[in-house]
Amino acid sequence: MDPRSVKELLEGVRDGRLSPDEAASRLATLPFEDLGFAKLDHHRALRRGFPEAVFGAGKTPPQIVAIVERMAARGQSVLVTRTTAAVYEQVAAVRTGAQWHVAARCVTVECGTKVPLPGRIAVLAAGTSDLPVAEEAAVVAAFHGAAVERIYDVGVAGLHRLLDRTAAIREADVVIVVAGMEGALPSVVAGLVDSPVVAVPTSVGYGASFGGLAALLAMLNACSSGVGVVNIDNGFGAAHLACLILRGRSAA
Amino acid sequence: MDPRSVKELLEGVRDGRLSPDEAASRLATLPFEDLGFAKLDHHRALRRGFPEAVFGAGKTPPQIVAIVERMAARGQSVLVTRTTAAVYEQVAAVRTGAQWHVAARCVTVECGTKVPLPGRIAVLAAGTSDLPVAEEAAVVAAFHGAAVERIYDVGVAGLHRLLDRTAAIREADVVIVVAGMEGALPSVVAGLVDSPVVAVPTSVGYGASFGGLAALLAMLNACSSGVGVVNIDNGFGAAHLACLILRGRSAA
Amino acid sequence: MDPRSVKELLEGVRDGRLSPDEAASRLATLPFEDLGFAKLDHHRALRRGFPEAVFGAGKTPPQIVAIVERMAARGQSVLVTRTTAAVYEQVAAVRTGAQWHVAARCVTVECGTKVPLPGRIAVLAAGTSDLPVAEEAAVVAAFHGAAVERIYDVGVAGLHRLLDRTAAIREADVVIVVAGMEGALPSVVAGLVDSPVVAVPTSVGYGASFGGLAALLAMLNACSSGVGVVNIDNGFGAAHLACLILRGRSAA
Amino acid sequence: MDPRSVKELLEGVRDGRLSPDEAASRLATLPFEDLGFAKLDHHRALRRGFPEAVFGAGKTPPQIVAIVERMAARGQSVLVTRTTAAVYEQVAAVRTGAQWHVAARCVTVECGTKVPLPGRIAVLAAGTSDLPVAEEAAVVAAFHGAAVERIYDVGVAGLHRLLDRTAAIREADVVIVVAGMEGALPSVVAGLVDSPVVAVPTSVGYGASFGGLAALLAMLNACSSGVGVVNIDNGFGAAHLACLILRGRSAA
Amino acid sequence: MDPRSVKELLEGVRDGRLSPDEAASRLATLPFEDLGFAKLDHHRALRRGFPEAVFGAGKTPPQIVAIVERMAARGQSVLVTRTTAAVYEQVAAVRTGAQWHVAARCVTVECGTKVPLPGRIAVLAAGTSDLPVAEEAAVVAAFHGAAVERIYDVGVAGLHRLLDRTAAIREADVVIVVAGMEGALPSVVAGLVDSPVVAVPTSVGYGASFGGLAALLAMLNACSSGVGVVNIDNGFGAAHLACLILRGRSAA
Amino acid sequence: MDPRSVKELLEGVRDGRLSPDEAASRLATLPFEDLGFAKLDHHRALRRGFPEAVFGAGKTPPQIVAIVERMAARGQSVLVTRTTAAVYEQVAAVRTGAQWHVAARCVTVECGTKVPLPGRIAVLAAGTSDLPVAEEAAVVAAFHGAAVERIYDVGVAGLHRLLDRTAAIREADVVIVVAGMEGALPSVVAGLVDSPVVAVPTSVGYGASFGGLAALLAMLNACSSGVGVVNIDNGFGAAHLACLILRGRSAA
Amino acid sequence: MDPRSVKELLEGVRDGRLSPDEAASRLATLPFEDLGFAKLDHHRALRRGFPEAVFGAGKTPPQIVAIVERMAARGQSVLVTRTTAAVYEQVAAVRTGAQWHVAARCVTVECGTKVPLPGRIAVLAAGTSDLPVAEEAAVVAAFHGAAVERIYDVGVAGLHRLLDRTAAIREADVVIVVAGMEGALPSVVAGLVDSPVVAVPTSVGYGASFGGLAALLAMLNACSSGVGVVNIDNGFGAAHLACLILRGRSAA
Amino acid sequence: MDPRSVKELLEGVRDGRLSPDEAASRLATLPFEDLGFAKLDHHRALRRGFPEAVFGAGKTPPQIVAIVERMAARGQSVLVTRTTAAVYEQVAAVRTGAQWHVAARCVTVECGTKVPLPGRIAVLAAGTSDLPVAEEAAVVAAFHGAAVERIYDVGVAGLHRLLDRTAAIREADVVIVVAGMEGALPSVVAGLVDSPVVAVPTSVGYGASFGGLAALLAMLNACSSGVGVVNIDNGFGAAHLACLILRGRSAA
Repeated sequence: MDPRSVKELLEGVRDGRLSPDEAASRLATLPFEDLGFAKLDHHRALRRGFPEAVFGAGKTPPQIVAIVERMAARGQSVLVTRTTAAVYEQVAAVRTGAQWHVAARCVTVECGTKVPLPGRIAVLAAGTSDLPVAEEAAVVAAFHGAAVERIYDVGVAGLHRLLDRTAAIREADVVIVVAGMEGALPSVVAGLVDSPVVAVPTSVGYGASFGGLAALLAMLNACSSGVGVVNIDNGFGAAHLACLILRGRSAA
Repeated sequence: MDPRSVKELLEGVRDGRLSPDEAASRLATLPFEDLGFAKLDHHRALRRGFPEAVFGAGKTPPQIVAIVERMAARGQSVLVTRTTAAVYEQVAAVRTGAQWHVAARCVTVECGTKVPLPGRIAVLAAGTSDLPVAEEAAVVAAFHGAAVERIYDVGVAGLHRLLDRTAAIREADVVIVVAGMEGALPSVVAGLVDSPVVAVPTSVGYGASFGGLAALLAMLNACSSGVGVVNIDNGFGAAHLACLILRGRSAA
Repeated sequence: MDPRSVKELLEGVRDGRLSPDEAASRLATLPFEDLGFAKLDHHRALRRGFPEAVFGAGKTPPQIVAIVERMAARGQSVLVTRTTAAVYEQVAAVRTGAQWHVAARCVTVECGTKVPLPGRIAVLAAGTSDLPVAEEAAVVAAFHGAAVERIYDVGVAGLHRLLDRTAAIREADVVIVVAGMEGALPSVVAGLVDSPVVAVPTSVGYGASFGGLAALLAMLNACSSGVGVVNIDNGFGAAHLACLILRGRSAA
Repeated sequence: MDPRSVKELLEGVRDGRLSPDEAASRLATLPFEDLGFAKLDHHRALRRGFPEAVFGAGKTPPQIVAIVERMAARGQSVLVTRTTAAVYEQVAAVRTGAQWHVAARCVTVECGTKVPLPGRIAVLAAGTSDLPVAEEAAVVAAFHGAAVERIYDVGVAGLHRLLDRTAAIREADVVIVVAGMEGALPSVVAGLVDSPVVAVPTSVGYGASFGGLAALLAMLNACSSGVGVVNIDNGFGAAHLACLILRGRSAA
Repeated sequence: MDPRSVKELLEGVRDGRLSPDEAASRLATLPFEDLGFAKLDHHRALRRGFPEAVFGAGKTPPQIVAIVERMAARGQSVLVTRTTAAVYEQVAAVRTGAQWHVAARCVTVECGTKVPLPGRIAVLAAGTSDLPVAEEAAVVAAFHGAAVERIYDVGVAGLHRLLDRTAAIREADVVIVVAGMEGALPSVVAGLVDSPVVAVPTSVGYGASFGGLAALLAMLNACSSGVGVVNIDNGFGAAHLACLILRGRSAA
Repeated sequence: MDPRSVKELLEGVRDGRLSPDEAASRLATLPFEDLGFAKLDHHRALRRGFPEAVFGAGKTPPQIVAIVERMAARGQSVLVTRTTAAVYEQVAAVRTGAQWHVAARCVTVECGTKVPLPGRIAVLAAGTSDLPVAEEAAVVAAFHGAAVERIYDVGVAGLHRLLDRTAAIREADVVIVVAGMEGALPSVVAGLVDSPVVAVPTSVGYGASFGGLAALLAMLNACSSGVGVVNIDNGFGAAHLACLILRGRSAA
Repeated sequence: MDPRSVKELLEGVRDGRLSPDEAASRLATLPFEDLGFAKLDHHRALRRGFPEAVFGAGKTPPQIVAIVERMAARGQSVLVTRTTAAVYEQVAAVRTGAQWHVAARCVTVECGTKVPLPGRIAVLAAGTSDLPVAEEAAVVAAFHGAAVERIYDVGVAGLHRLLDRTAAIREADVVIVVAGMEGALPSVVAGLVDSPVVAVPTSVGYGASFGGLAALLAMLNACSSGVGVVNIDNGFGAAHLACLILRGRSAA
Repeated sequence: MDPRSVKELLEGVRDGRLSPDEAASRLATLPFEDLGFAKLDHHRALRRGFPEAVFGAGKTPPQIVAIVERMAARGQSVLVTRTTAAVYEQVAAVRTGAQWHVAARCVTVECGTKVPLPGRIAVLAAGTSDLPVAEEAAVVAAFHGAAVERIYDVGVAGLHRLLDRTAAIREADVVIVVAGMEGALPSVVAGLVDSPVVAVPTSVGYGASFGGLAALLAMLNACSSGVGVVNIDNGFGAAHLACLILRGRSAA
């Protein structure tokens, strides 16, 4: 029920075309959600300001191209995650500004000017095999308007490499920590910094890593406080959460 | 927002005390959910007609007594599951009609006359150790107004005892099947009857039953179609689902 | 042991060709199951009235074609689930009425007129990736004679889309709810409706969804009563159970 | 190595009592970590400004009393989680300002004036059994200086109760969502708000909840983005993470 | 339907009191299972010849005493497993011949003379903590009439103790192997002997033994063929299976 | 150390060429295992009399052909399990008597005359998808000399088909029961027969069957005694165990 | 067969009392393992030189006292792990030198002089809750003759405390690392040192630590090489392995 | 901060160009880790002396070739594990000394002369399917300078083959034991030897081996002390740990 319909109904009451009882009854039987949610949705879209993201895995190239075109037609930026170079090529054929982020396996199409988020996100990766997930997080965060600092190959087996970057990590307002295998990095990092840590376990590993379960459990049991965990390999979700945290800062 | 408030608002519009614009704005800013849900909730309560149930585990006797008194004061019947004789005694001290169902570990307090549900529910139990769960289902179903047929000790290890009761099982409109250990009974029963089967795995067993997991998995993998599974030891939930199925029949 | 054999034996007794003792002994050593079950089976087939279904996964195209032909030759409708367009083409080559349900991955061949089931089934899907399972449920339910309302893309992340469809969902007599990932939809829906809910977890998700385990556990632990759960991705089973529930209504 | 020692060493060099080579050698052989970490630690303590917390489970009352006394002697506020009324009584016997938060199972001793954190935290609980964990989160957050809004009993089975509180939830800058059983609430809430959601699975449930595993998996697989998950029953950790997020806002 | 009823019915036919059609109809509508199963059950009881066993865990002492008395009154021997000295004392108070097997946690009451089974069962236990399960197996097997050889403390960590007993183990016709922890003993034993091995994992162990899961999985994956596995701690089941194997030998 | 060496050594002692001390020392330092085990091994090979079996999965065709040829050259029969038609063709090219068991995925090459085992094995399969495992069991048992009765498609969903075959099942001396999905068949069968049951869970199923885990747990928790379980899909192991049981009968 | 028996037999041959054939036959039929293993066992005991250890959990005080007395009577030192002060008191009543290690929950009784092992073992513990396991390791290692350096409360959340102790850790020849929760410490330590690391997961934690499983998986997936893992809470096993490593050094 | 920078800074103090306060401040703000860790790292590299290893799985051939060339250019030996013949060919095209270890799936390029490690490593494999992992361990250990004794096909099902090799196994200073399926071999071996045992579970098996989980759990629960476990299939890690143990011997 859009505001116009409500107003027409109320004008009918004012004009005597509709009794209060009839109007009450019609209001009660309307799908009430339309009233508030449509507006709220709009409101949220305005406030959120984050462009749309498409989870590419399991969608066919034509489906993805169609979604991208529909959004771009409305002037909306769009991001496709978990996709391939082949999809990028089909998207690029119809949208000239499309970009292929090979390590992140993402396609982005940016429209209009982006509102920068306040503050800075550091994306840490424990090992080189964790890069696809870390890059997904970094590309998504940048796409959402965040300043991103990539700090890679700082796994706990070579602690000095991590400690060498401590200053840079401490400067970030949110730290995304991506690690597979034993998933120890978020515990260590959360002990070094004062900012919220978003931990992303990856499926990197073999044997008793059980597809990322070992890293996931380790992160949930992190002995340092201040760590929120997302699903295995969910670089997108980590970046989204980190950007929500940053945006809150602009509202403060 | 209750109907009366809406009507007052609309009368304000009719009487010229409120412009349509002002009224539209006030409608939009009201917690919209009140409008519909309160009514719907009321509606649902009327249609559902099932008395309230209290999950007794983890509540203190005084908490349970307080809840029972509040409901009984409104003339509502009430059921307490997973409780103890000690709680019953405290309830009985304040409500004379309270009943203690020892095998089901339930207390019931019935107020007013109960509307019987159409049809009949058979509650099957594989072994004697499954009785507490089966009795919970039976007591809850009876409390909701269903005719209940108890058919116990018909585990698949003694198939003839089950087959001896086939006719009675087939007469039921819904069959609740309670079994622990290997949880095979629902598969067998669903192959014998034409009615929906509600399967309840129990935590009866030891070792590789892993607290009912073995029975749960077996029931989810039942080779016979027509089986819906509820949580381990959830006799209440099974009875509730069965009664919803029966009540639908009265609407048909 | 068919009825005719029993009668011949009894005529032998009447005519004195067989003593009661001999007859008793022969009755006892006959495979007794033939007596009752054959008849019951026939009886059940008549009462059930549901056409045959073939689980296509793991069967070769020639095997499926052979089964379809044998059934169609007897004038029986037949449904093949979890199959492919390639199988459909082979079936269509020999049965002109065959239909290919691409989203459901099902082939149907209908013979004769279908007896409609009383009432209506709503099939809800949380996300677009859940559609194959939801469509399997919808196609199977329609094939069994049910009126089916498809209500898709109503996952809990966008609650207003679900609430917009509340009226339609409440009109259904049984609600099938299909969801992957966190599997929250059945809990929410069961809180909104008065009908039985059949919950189908799907293997949609990644990482800690563990092939549908997360959604399955969530549904078994649904905080709303009135939910029966079937196996992961088991759209067929959900539809079968829902149709059994509907058919019971015609008997009431 | 504290700053004073370093300065003495350098003064020795300036005064000619120590050659640069000797000084370099002594610097290199000192436990280098003392140099930086002691200072950083101090720095962190100043910036963090969060009082100390003691995990009470598994510590004896005398141990807890000793810790509390040592901290209070230094004028530090202190919080004891997962403790008992008996411990509180022993603490209260030695520290007059001690407070017992019965629902949260926490003791707090506040010293000096607390610096309020900017913004507001909403703590949601799905059911009444989740209150101990929710209260732990609320008490900890308040102890850290946050404004806390408790919004309890808003589980998804009664969606209208949740929707009635939508406005209050949306006003929070961080939302902590505590839920056991199927753990669906964070998915629903994250779809309604624009702020970061910290999800806390609880061990509330039985059977296939497997001690909170079902809720944990559901939250990790939340279909709404913007959710960070902490360990089962970890109300403290959720509050700590939420307060880190709030404090970042003051720095922005 | 007992044989006498059948005969009466058939005599009715012979005597002309009942037409063959009427008799056929009555036979068909009788609970058919009575016909065969009662007899078969009887037959099985005769052939099986194994006395009844009562699973004592979870039964109250009065329940157990009642069962024992009922059986003893019929002259049947009876065995109670997983029970306590307290139960034994109550049983002994009413049945003079009752025996308490302390290590096996079993009570036996033997009536009449026992038919010995052909052949011999060796019961091996890996460690002293496995003795309760091993003794349950040994006591049950002896109670069923088997000659039992106990060979304890022959875990694979001290291989020479096992090898010292190789001759005795090879003389057995069935070998029951009881082991917890890593559950390696059945693999080793099955490689040494030519007889069937019944493997019983025990819940002995801690940490990653996960209540016997480690031993169970090891035994299911035994690299030696000829091993059948029973449930964790199921000494009774192992003995029952072993005695069935022995009894088959007498039939050969 | 073969017997001849021992004798030479002892003759040296008798002849005075070797002192008792020297001989004792040489005996102690000889690899003692050679003494007994070589002989025992030989002994066991004679007693066992079962031909060799080769687990084909993961071996290359040339490896398998080489093994088959080496054995056949010694006049030994040989069986290859888990193999392919391609392997069979290569084997058949070099050994004329090779046979391809397509459903069992086995190749057999028989040399000389086979000693029949006493008694009979029934191999039951719940569903048609379980046939590869059931056939593996049947082919292996026959290859070992057992009389095998195949009783297929007797899953518990259609109990009458199972009951129709009760007599045949009861005639068997060992019953191998193969079932996937919920794995209920062994419980039912063990309740119907007096012989040992060897239960084989299969990986047939999907979703919550977790690759056969559901069936495996069900069988381990079988409510009927007398069931020994082997690994998932281990038709070979079941047949081997069953044949060991049969062979024991000839020794009795 | 002890050496003396062998010699007597050989003397019989030399003296003509026994023919070589008879002697060969007697040697072959003797339990051959006695020959070698008794000696080897003796040999191993000598070389090992480690005193006996008794796993106290699940043994009654009288059983433990009896074992201790028997060993002490032979002049053997003995260690009881996982025991209580009550047991210690009973032991101390009969053996004056007994010592109670309260934090390690161990009793030791030392007899004679201990041979020190070469080198040094560092025992690290992440948190104070890990101390019982760490102390068990430290007490056992010291009891076996090792020089032990305890380095506690060096969890990765406060990295500087660990780094402050780096020099001491590097001086150890074997490092035992004890940690619960996320189990990250062994990865970090193995990256800092050149010696073998023995990792001991503990059951310290709650929720998703699943009794130590999280820490165990983390340690098995340690991204640093050079880590060997023992069972959860197995301080004894870690110390035993570390001492075997040290003793090898004396042999080098 | 390298030593030279520190010295320059100190010379500035001595020369009066820098005040002690300024110097203290600059020391404190330098990335302190550079000071110690760079040196330590260098130190460790020198002491470790183990050539670099590259985990080949998941790296492209060009990536591997590039790494190999860079290392070889510095005169460093390099090892590539989990790789393929195709990668070997590309490496061999650019480095003449490259070697392909087909069974181990490793490429090695050796530069300069290798320092032999003291002592000897025995690598045991239970079955032929375990050879890839065992060979990886053997090749890595040899590459690190160890003398390696391969002892294969000594699974516990044929105990005499293992016992025949006891002497050789006892001569080793560290024993690596590789086994899949039930993983029993390390328990047995640790009972036979006095040296540390490094246990490697493999993913060899099917069904309830769950990808090596069964073997892993068995090894963690080994009833013999002295066993350290590494990840499933981690031949490299086992060899690395064994070589660290050996190298410690040279330092003793």
